[in-house]
Amino acid sequence: MLQANASVIIALLMGLVGVWYVLWQFKRVLSYDQGNQTMRDIAQAIQEGASAFLNREYQVLSIFVAIVAVVITVFLHWQTAMSFVFGAIASAGAGYLGMYVAVRANVRTAAAASVGLHEGLRVAFGSGAIMGMSVVSFSLLGMTLLFLFFKGDPNQLTYITGFGFGASSIALFARVGGGIYTKAADVGADLVGKVEQGIPEDDPRNPAVIADNVGDNVGDVAGMGADLFESYSGSIIAAAALGASLGEDAMAFVGLPFLVAAVGVVASLFGIYMVIGGDDSIVLPEALTKHIDKHVHKIDEKASLEDLLAALRHSVWGASAVILGLSLVAVILTGVSFNYWLVILVGLVAGNAIAYVTEYYTSYTEKPTQSIANSCQTGAATTIIQGMAVGMMSTVFPVLITAVAILLSIWLGMKADGSITAGLYAVALAGVGMLSTLGVTLATDAYGPVADNAGGIAEMSHLPKEVRERTDALDSLGNTTAATGKGFAIGSAVLTALALLAAYVTAAKVESLNILSPTMLPGILIGAMMPYFFSALTMMAVGKAAHAIVLEVRRQFKEIPGLMEGTGKPDYRACVGISTEGALREMILPGALAVIVPLVVGFVLGKEALAGLLVGTTASGFLLAVMMANAGGAWDNAKKWIETGEYGGKGSDAHKAAVVGDTVGDPFKDTSGPSLNILIKLMSIVSLVFATSFGSGWFSF
Amino acid sequence: MLQANASVIIALLMGLVGVWYVLWQFKRVLSYDQGNQTMRDIAQAIQEGASAFLNREYQVLSIFVAIVAVVITVFLHWQTAMSFVFGAIASAGAGYLGMYVAVRANVRTAAAASVGLHEGLRVAFGSGAIMGMSVVSFSLLGMTLLFLFFKGDPNQLTYITGFGFGASSIALFARVGGGIYTKAADVGADLVGKVEQGIPEDDPRNPAVIADNVGDNVGDVAGMGADLFESYSGSIIAAAALGASLGEDAMAFVGLPFLVAAVGVVASLFGIYMVIGGDDSIVLPEALTKHIDKHVHKIDEKASLEDLLAALRHSVWGASAVILGLSLVAVILTGVSFNYWLVILVGLVAGNAIAYVTEYYTSYTEKPTQSIANSCQTGAATTIIQGMAVGMMSTVFPVLITAVAILLSIWLGMKADGSITAGLYAVALAGVGMLSTLGVTLATDAYGPVADNAGGIAEMSHLPKEVRERTDALDSLGNTTAATGKGFAIGSAVLTALALLAAYVTAAKVESLNILSPTMLPGILIGAMMPYFFSALTMMAVGKAAHAIVLEVRRQFKEIPGLMEGTGKPDYRACVGISTEGALREMILPGALAVIVPLVVGFVLGKEALAGLLVGTTASGFLLAVMMANAGGAWDNAKKWIETGEYGGKGSDAHKAAVVGDTVGDPFKDTSGPSLNILIKLMSIVSLVFATSFGSGWFSF
Repeated sequence: MLQANASVIIALLMGLVGVWYVLWQFKRVLSYDQGNQTMRDIAQAIQEGASAFLNREYQVLSIFVAIVAVVITVFLHWQTAMSFVFGAIASAGAGYLGMYVAVRANVRTAAAASVGLHEGLRVAFGSGAIMGMSVVSFSLLGMTLLFLFFKGDPNQLTYITGFGFGASSIALFARVGGGIYTKAADVGADLVGKVEQGIPEDDPRNPAVIADNVGDNVGDVAGMGADLFESYSGSIIAAAALGASLGEDAMAFVGLPFLVAAVGVVASLFGIYMVIGGDDSIVLPEALTKHIDKHVHKIDEKASLEDLLAALRHSVWGASAVILGLSLVAVILTGVSFNYWLVILVGLVAGNAIAYVTEYYTSYTEKPTQSIANSCQTGAATTIIQGMAVGMMSTVFPVLITAVAILLSIWLGMKADGSITAGLYAVALAGVGMLSTLGVTLATDAYGPVADNAGGIAEMSHLPKEVRERTDALDSLGNTTAATGKGFAIGSAVLTALALLAAYVTAAKVESLNILSPTMLPGILIGAMMPYFFSALTMMAVGKAAHAIVLEVRRQFKEIPGLMEGTGKPDYRACVGISTEGALREMILPGALAVIVPLVVGFVLGKEALAGLLVGTTASGFLLAVMMANAGGAWDNAKKWIETGEYGGKGSDAHKAAVVGDTVGDPFKDTSGPSLNILIKLMSIVSLVFATSFGSGWFSF
Repeated sequence: MLQANASVIIALLMGLVGVWYVLWQFKRVLSYDQGNQTMRDIAQAIQEGASAFLNREYQVLSIFVAIVAVVITVFLHWQTAMSFVFGAIASAGAGYLGMYVAVRANVRTAAAASVGLHEGLRVAFGSGAIMGMSVVSFSLLGMTLLFLFFKGDPNQLTYITGFGFGASSIALFARVGGGIYTKAADVGADLVGKVEQGIPEDDPRNPAVIADNVGDNVGDVAGMGADLFESYSGSIIAAAALGASLGEDAMAFVGLPFLVAAVGVVASLFGIYMVIGGDDSIVLPEALTKHIDKHVHKIDEKASLEDLLAALRHSVWGASAVILGLSLVAVILTGVSFNYWLVILVGLVAGNAIAYVTEYYTSYTEKPTQSIANSCQTGAATTIIQGMAVGMMSTVFPVLITAVAILLSIWLGMKADGSITAGLYAVALAGVGMLSTLGVTLATDAYGPVADNAGGIAEMSHLPKEVRERTDALDSLGNTTAATGKGFAIGSAVLTALALLAAYVTAAKVESLNILSPTMLPGILIGAMMPYFFSALTMMAVGKAAHAIVLEVRRQFKEIPGLMEGTGKPDYRACVGISTEGALREMILPGALAVIVPLVVGFVLGKEALAGLLVGTTASGFLLAVMMANAGGAWDNAKKWIETGEYGGKGSDAHKAAVVGDTVGDPFKDTSGPSLNILIKLMSIVSLVFATSFGSGWFSF
């Protein structure tokens, strides 16, 4: 039977394989042609803006990380603090690398799209693959190195929770700050540029256009990457922590999640390969390459959105098939019950099912989004009402799927090993299963902003019309994968949060978890309120930051001579600076809340109330996040549906109403909704890290 | 020590006093002048429309009640079925009476407003008082008669839960059906009348204008009345049921909630008297009358909204003071711990605090609503975003207040009697305390639609301008009390639902309530999803029904010659019929869901999962209801604030954006939001009624 140490070493080795692939792909993407000088200049401006934001963000974060590390050292142990810093650095490193490549791949994608659709897809997807694989491999490397470093210490796994906390802290600020940045720039650019000045989207005369392009990367590459880095690490940590209390074979249970993750590296590489194809490959021997190539989905010039989607879907399915095969081997090697293989299957199926439902509710080829487009005919009010209704309706299946997945996992775990802890371990393992293909699913997601940026660069540097058409095709694909990616992110966040909650309850030795106990009900209610409070803050933050951009853009149009005529040069940096400062300032309060509220509730109302708080936040946050993400996605696509010529097409009254829906949906789907993933995970991991510090609170009953 | 029977008999007697007051006030209101023939004709049309809706609604309901009564008889006992039917009849009776008077008081209020503001307030408030006092006294009479009827039977209190279920069923359909009716008519009338034809609100040429006026009563009189009838009955039933399991002195605990409710009748009559004043009074001896009259808030012609609000606020505070004094006597008489008096105080303070917060977030003299008006300047999208953010932010304090109230109640109860059951009994008692002034608080609420209708009648019958100004003043007051009333309704619904949940857990003998047990987590998640599913259905229902009205109004404008010129007569009945049929058809599915889902979860996943379901629904529904009600109220008043001349006033672009916000807010605050109160209570009471039927479900762990 494979013991934990062996499993962890295998995971470490696969982490190294991942890093090697990242470096190889990095070299490959950067070797592509960057196009003409205009394109290079624009890309340069985006790169500078992105660096400026990330540098400032990481400055703020280092202060935060330093403070928290001191607090952890004083109140807990230096080992946990060290893991915390390590987690923060690993997550920030993956985010930085992903962004670094994304803002360089955008211009190369535009240049490659001048050759053909498949060439463009390859460059953009290569950039996404770097983000996906760095998240997976940095996370695996970090956790396994810490595991081996603390070997022999009985608190080994307790210390490693700090890694998850570090990753969560980065994720919070990356998601919230990135979300505020991207929508403030987007809304600000649109309100003055499109509405007041009547110039098209991505027009180089708009002073906020660079900030808008930077924002796409900041939100959907760095933000999404950090979000899933956290889920990925959190689910493995939670599974390992719960596994450690599973009796005699504990170390086999601790090893299994690492082994499944290791298997996922292979599967993800296979999936990525299915999209990018064989000729560039130096990863696999030629014979195998040729065999696989037969199954690679060929993208030709006339590929429809359906064809492109099918290509990505096949790659995710291919990766899932690899997982299923190899994780069966992993289960056999560790010697645990066959039921745990079924649990991994449950996680994989649930993740894909949620992604499918999300696609149904947000795609304009389906009824829900078309019903919103239909209601655009009677104005903005009915557009909003129908969009809200669709968003609310879209929560039903994701919740049922998750509930069934939890029920089945617990049932399978308990059948195998009797205790409820085994059941909760199975929930965590289902989370690991759901995220095991992360390398490729995140690639399909992080590729979107690259394509979006490529379109902007093509527009701004006046490339031929067919180039823009190709980047638009890639961009549409990116919008759909972004929506399904959000479904995946929230589904995995819920499983991770519940697994962390279970680990917290075990670690804090909460005696009574009675739902009707004195402090539990107030805890649940306050927990359910947190996502609303948090979303209110982030939505207001977008409003404030966008307002500052609007004032600056108006000022430039007024004060810079010849700006509209194209003879004056806009000051892009000013808008980048305003977005950066606004995002950083506004992320502090919601971020601090997520860390402080669990601590306050834990100390004042006691560790039992804290469990209630986490349950309340997870349940209420799940619903609100799905509703906001899907309503936002559906409004966006309802507008796109009308732009295809339905209900009068672009410029009609229906289109104007649809634009209102789209604008409302922006902070829903790109700021507040996704930030809730982090909220629920971060609150859980803060509780887990400080689990042993909480008592029964100030009230005696 | 006063035992249960004595307390119940006192409550019965006070119920009779309430009925006597209702009859006296009924005669008084109907004795007022009805104005000229035009006014009478319009009122006649509204009366016919209201009767048509209620008759059809009660037809549908009798089928539902008959089926459920048979189900209860077969699966439980005939006694519970009898109580169920009794509860349904009592609730429907109170609703019918309230509506009957409201649609007759409207025209009398318009006529009285021709004399003066105070005269108008008196008639309208008298009508509200009838609704308030019939709810309180019918509920008390019904429960006490059943209590005495089943005297000596050990299942006495179990049977009486049927009364709450009956009341809940009526409430569901009254709230959901009424909510759909009122907003379909409102939105439909506005979309064609105001927007397409450019005729003002309440214009007699609009074929949907009568349906719109009927709708105000259907939603805010009958719907709100049934909602609070349910909370009122439910909190008393839950307290009595929990009290019965409180050891030796059980019967004293059972009697206390009845006694507090009895005290509330006196207090409410006092509060009502403080608004209407002394000269009409035949209730109190003259010497006392004169003494009280000194403290009655005088309303003069120049009264501002603040003055009018102060008048109502003083009456509620006066009633609260009476409650505090008399309930201290009640606590002493029953011989229970003094702590329970503090619990009643906690309930009263929490209710008023929630109402205060609601007023703060929805009043246009305060910052939150003004911030929405400010964002109207940048268009409809920012209006919606800011309104949603304000609605979300407005949940923070109501949740904290409720959490603290629960914590304090449980703490006081446990300090007094040791067991957690005593703590949960205290939560139920706090609910009874919160609702003890219902007679007067509901009067302040149910008076609103009467004033609103009076304004419509004044407009349609071309009364002098100052009459409309007076009814507008009364109407504005009604809008504010409607918002605070909604805060009250949801706060009491949460306490009632939690108390019913506790009663369910006791009755179902749920052994484990572990928050991490196998079926609990799926239960909580599905529960949290229910309010979203339910709201999606009700919002879509409004959309569908409003669409049918739009088509009919357009048809009439096209086909009836001389309609716009005022020579042709619109067919009001057609619109009334469409609203009625639409509301009745669309209320079935959400209504059935609320009853069926708890039963399915209880049987399939077991009684433990059902407890999780109820907690999830209560927490998630609380948040969503407060958010929707307050966002809706704030949008409405942001529009009114602009109409006072801010940001360009009526007709400006800011005003147009505000109208979009107001229209989105309509189904939020008048259909979906308030319906959630019923959802959370009905699901709890269905579970309580069938508590003994559930097993451990299909899964064995």
